[in-house]
Amino acid sequence: MIALLLVLCGVLGGAAGSTEAETAEWCGAWRVAGEANNLGAWSTVPEECAEFVRGYMMGRGYVVDLEMVASEAGEFARSVEICGDGKDAWVFDIDETLLSNLPYYAAHGFGLEVFDHEKFNDWVEKGVAPAIEPSLKLYEDVLNLGFKVILLTGRSERHRSATIENLINAGFKDWDQLILRNSDDQGKRATLYKSEKRSEMEKDGYRILGNSGDQWSDLLGFSVAVRSFKLPNPMYYIP
Amino acid sequence: MIALLLVLCGVLGGAAGSTEAETAEWCGAWRVAGEANNLGAWSTVPEECAEFVRGYMMGRGYVVDLEMVASEAGEFARSVEICGDGKDAWVFDIDETLLSNLPYYAAHGFGLEVFDHEKFNDWVEKGVAPAIEPSLKLYEDVLNLGFKVILLTGRSERHRSATIENLINAGFKDWDQLILRNSDDQGKRATLYKSEKRSEMEKDGYRILGNSGDQWSDLLGFSVAVRSFKLPNPMYYIP
Repeated sequence: MIALLLVLCGVLGGAAGSTEAETAEWCGAWRVAGEANNLGAWSTVPEECAEFVRGYMMGRGYVVDLEMVASEAGEFARSVEICGDGKDAWVFDIDETLLSNLPYYAAHGFGLEVFDHEKFNDWVEKGVAPAIEPSLKLYEDVLNLGFKVILLTGRSERHRSATIENLINAGFKDWDQLILRNSDDQGKRATLYKSEKRSEMEKDGYRILGNSGDQWSDLLGFSVAVRSFKLPNPMYYIP
Repeated sequence: MIALLLVLCGVLGGAAGSTEAETAEWCGAWRVAGEANNLGAWSTVPEECAEFVRGYMMGRGYVVDLEMVASEAGEFARSVEICGDGKDAWVFDIDETLLSNLPYYAAHGFGLEVFDHEKFNDWVEKGVAPAIEPSLKLYEDVLNLGFKVILLTGRSERHRSATIENLINAGFKDWDQLILRNSDDQGKRATLYKSEKRSEMEKDGYRILGNSGDQWSDLLGFSVAVRSFKLPNPMYYIP
């Protein structure tokens, strides 16, 4: 009987035996815990939060959060002193930061399904991901302010041309560098790979003033930016 | 006319001309942005979010978030390898982490009023702040697991005895060290003060495995913990 109860608790997860309102409360707290980097590594959205995450991503919640973080980033960008020697850098991640893969994730349970590299790579090669509009505005603003934009993505080198085509079609242009994972970077944790690349930027004389990413692994580690901006993403976690 | 519009926009802030639902949306995004460390320094809660913050603090929202972060911290504490040589440390902040000053802030607009050191110090000297229950449970759990608990607070040395009395009355005991700001630490930013103190712990041989605090300045800087846990606090910001 005890074993059975344990199994049931395991299946039901954190919001076990809850009303709909309690489940929504718990899923809201789970989402905020992710944004605050309080969760350990997780591979899929908790089953009881599938509907909550779908509602957040397709409703106003996601848009308002994206606008808030872009607005805070823009305010910082305008406030910071630019040297103007071409070495003031803003780093952007790509997926769920500049480009939205929401059409893909909408067809794959909004993070409820285990990540499928092959299917996702097929989607990437289509090159049709739309821009995240508040990020596109921020991108243009920081360029106009005189920052150099460096794109640093976990995507592989072999997706370079599809990525460039997609970025341009979505309205992004005039970046300084586009850094993708080369063969040496395969298998590295994102935090290390991205830190190493930021460290190389610093060795090249760049001052990394801002960094925008939807994963904490885009932002933490070493050679971190003066200010880092965490875009919302309750659908997946990259260590 | 343009000047007048600018003044109005300035007064109304981010949720200008909004419906009640839009204001709640905006304030929700503002709160999450704070938890994700996306906001710059702020001195008071945005006026239009006063009611939102009151509702969050007094309702289920705050409790559920506190339970979530304590649960994640506890899970990490149980998963981590303890050497058992008395040098496995868990650092806790005090205010809004172990002890709740909610009775004080409820009488002072839940962060809407500018922080008043003198009035707050009078409150601290009363020594009647209640325990944050999920934190008390975490505190006891990490002690039982064999961690040494180090309390690191921005409170001044002159509040040591009131703080000890308050902690004990609220159920906290058996801490290893209680570190308060001494005269050398006055005027230092919290991030630096707390990093220096964590660095001293490391020099004393401690391995800082966990760190719980309601401010990012409790958690960031140098000598950071293996895992840091950000407790919710939409009422005030300490740089």
